[in-house]
Amino acid sequence: MNILVAMDAFKGNLTSEEANQRVSKGLEMNNHQVKMVSVADGGEGSVDAILSATGEAYEVITHDLAGNVITITFAYLPEEKTAIVESASMCGIHFLDGTEKTHPTHTSSYGLGETVHWIIKEFDVETIVIMLGGTGVIDAGIGMGEALGIQYYDANHRLLEHVTGKDLGRIEEVDTSQLLPELKNIHFKIGSDVNAFLCGANGAAYLFGEQKGLRFEEIANYDENMKHFFEVVNGERVAGDGAAGGLGFFIRHFLNGKMEKGFSLIQHYQDWEALLLWADMLMTGEGRIDEQTLLGKLPLQMARLAEDSAVPVIALCGALHLSQETLRRYGICAAFSIMESPSSVKEAMAFSDEWLTETAMALGGMLNLYEG
Amino acid sequence: MNILVAMDAFKGNLTSEEANQRVSKGLEMNNHQVKMVSVADGGEGSVDAILSATGEAYEVITHDLAGNVITITFAYLPEEKTAIVESASMCGIHFLDGTEKTHPTHTSSYGLGETVHWIIKEFDVETIVIMLGGTGVIDAGIGMGEALGIQYYDANHRLLEHVTGKDLGRIEEVDTSQLLPELKNIHFKIGSDVNAFLCGANGAAYLFGEQKGLRFEEIANYDENMKHFFEVVNGERVAGDGAAGGLGFFIRHFLNGKMEKGFSLIQHYQDWEALLLWADMLMTGEGRIDEQTLLGKLPLQMARLAEDSAVPVIALCGALHLSQETLRRYGICAAFSIMESPSSVKEAMAFSDEWLTETAMALGGMLNLYEG
Repeated sequence: MNILVAMDAFKGNLTSEEANQRVSKGLEMNNHQVKMVSVADGGEGSVDAILSATGEAYEVITHDLAGNVITITFAYLPEEKTAIVESASMCGIHFLDGTEKTHPTHTSSYGLGETVHWIIKEFDVETIVIMLGGTGVIDAGIGMGEALGIQYYDANHRLLEHVTGKDLGRIEEVDTSQLLPELKNIHFKIGSDVNAFLCGANGAAYLFGEQKGLRFEEIANYDENMKHFFEVVNGERVAGDGAAGGLGFFIRHFLNGKMEKGFSLIQHYQDWEALLLWADMLMTGEGRIDEQTLLGKLPLQMARLAEDSAVPVIALCGALHLSQETLRRYGICAAFSIMESPSSVKEAMAFSDEWLTETAMALGGMLNLYEG
Repeated sequence: MNILVAMDAFKGNLTSEEANQRVSKGLEMNNHQVKMVSVADGGEGSVDAILSATGEAYEVITHDLAGNVITITFAYLPEEKTAIVESASMCGIHFLDGTEKTHPTHTSSYGLGETVHWIIKEFDVETIVIMLGGTGVIDAGIGMGEALGIQYYDANHRLLEHVTGKDLGRIEEVDTSQLLPELKNIHFKIGSDVNAFLCGANGAAYLFGEQKGLRFEEIANYDENMKHFFEVVNGERVAGDGAAGGLGFFIRHFLNGKMEKGFSLIQHYQDWEALLLWADMLMTGEGRIDEQTLLGKLPLQMARLAEDSAVPVIALCGALHLSQETLRRYGICAAFSIMESPSSVKEAMAFSDEWLTETAMALGGMLNLYEG
């Protein structure tokens, strides 16, 4: 049987690619033909997901959200003259360490701007896709702007340098005259699944501030500063602007970026049509399948994709908190937890490697029984 | 698809019948045809297992191992003129409560003899099958013998009455002249999976004494008393005699019983040949699948049975501690733990009802995908 394996990451445990490999191993022991596709929803792993299907990987030295020098990977598709960058790779929430240094007031998206700058200078590029999921900054993109040539001034017309979240409330003037001129010829696509606004009750600070390290009592003031910046640049209120702490707003407002669903953008570069034509079955899954999954997480996206091709979808997960009946209504034919014995979450994570392979082997054996 | 469901009990949680029902429910939701067969290995549940396939249930009032009045169920097969009794129903290890009253020195198999006595008097019976698994007594069957008319005397030729384990060392003379005469015309079959001897290092006291409440320091002396009785009755040393605290010895020696494997005896009355002819698949399982399973526990017996009919076997369990590769070598095509999330044993037991049904539903859905 031809089985397409497209597992989402088991968060904090296995990447999409690693989960795919474990499942494939179990299926291949039953002589099934397997193709693996890494998947991601626009956050961490998005570039890897695209690279698993197409493009070339390039590395660039840049800065993380706290200003540390790091090397990140992006994808370049020469035929499409397209580069795909994942903001989480330099601004990811995984860089937050709970100290003041990574508190939103002290972090910036500078590294993302720097990376875009370098790509424009070094590559023949017409389109730059920026995946916004999983970021830890809330700087409305001012750091990115600084790296691309925007200049910010305070009330005394003093130039603000190395801007971070703390500067949002101090910016009184934004000078875009030094913006990298090549930007005009670049199409920016934003991959995001967030409908938040830049500021206000449904804004980036109120909705995502706490998970990015803002203390509850800081949020109202932080949001005021976001709003201040929004007014200074004469922004339009658009849903999706609050993605990645306001990077959505920045790329739309200053770079004319067009927003798309993160998953759809990735899927576009992976040629799912051909993959599903080949497949007799799709195996997907994630660490935990629950009510959130139904809101559009990856296994559900997979189910939707497969539905049109009438390829049945089987899901594997660590924890299964939905009934089979519910899952079927959403296009997942059957779901299995890989758990093999009563265990703590920690133990289960330690065994998930082995359990994924074993469960896939068991299912692979069953599929062999009744195949034509 | 025709699916035969024959789950072993999930010890301490679900009976075989209950587990079967949960699995069947999940399969029937996928429109599979299901037949359920309760299974047992000769211990608790053996009579129910037979009754799930054939025979009539009868109740009789008798005594448990500590002398309390209880009602037990046995099976009667009128055509075969056969009664099937489970020694665990009155002498079962589940009656032990850790007090002196249920210590082996104070318990007896009297209730079993009483039940046999009553069956012989009330039923047209040629064969009595006694299942020996899961007992809590170690009285070498002297209690059973007393109920059937045997008289025991001590060194002073005083009649010992209401004999229990403590009397084994005091018996100097055994008078079988008053033994119920009808016993001569009854074929006794013993269902047992134990190879222990009556006494000695591989005897009932040494091998099973502690789990039946003997303290470690009591075992040597207890074994001496078993040996004393063995010598008084001029016993032959036969493997299997140590089953059920020596009931194996008693039924063989005094009633000319023939020993068979508990599982084979039950299977004989369930007509597995017809069941497997009907089935496209066999689902079995137990609470925990581990190395012990390979030594001949029920799922393995099921796999052996099904092998000859080329009916594929799928196993469901709570905890899965064997690899799929190992299980396949033993004839189990695929095994699944029903666990759906990281949980303690207690939580897993509380959810096993629901999880059995859900896992069966998932598997049932998969089986539907590729059925011809």
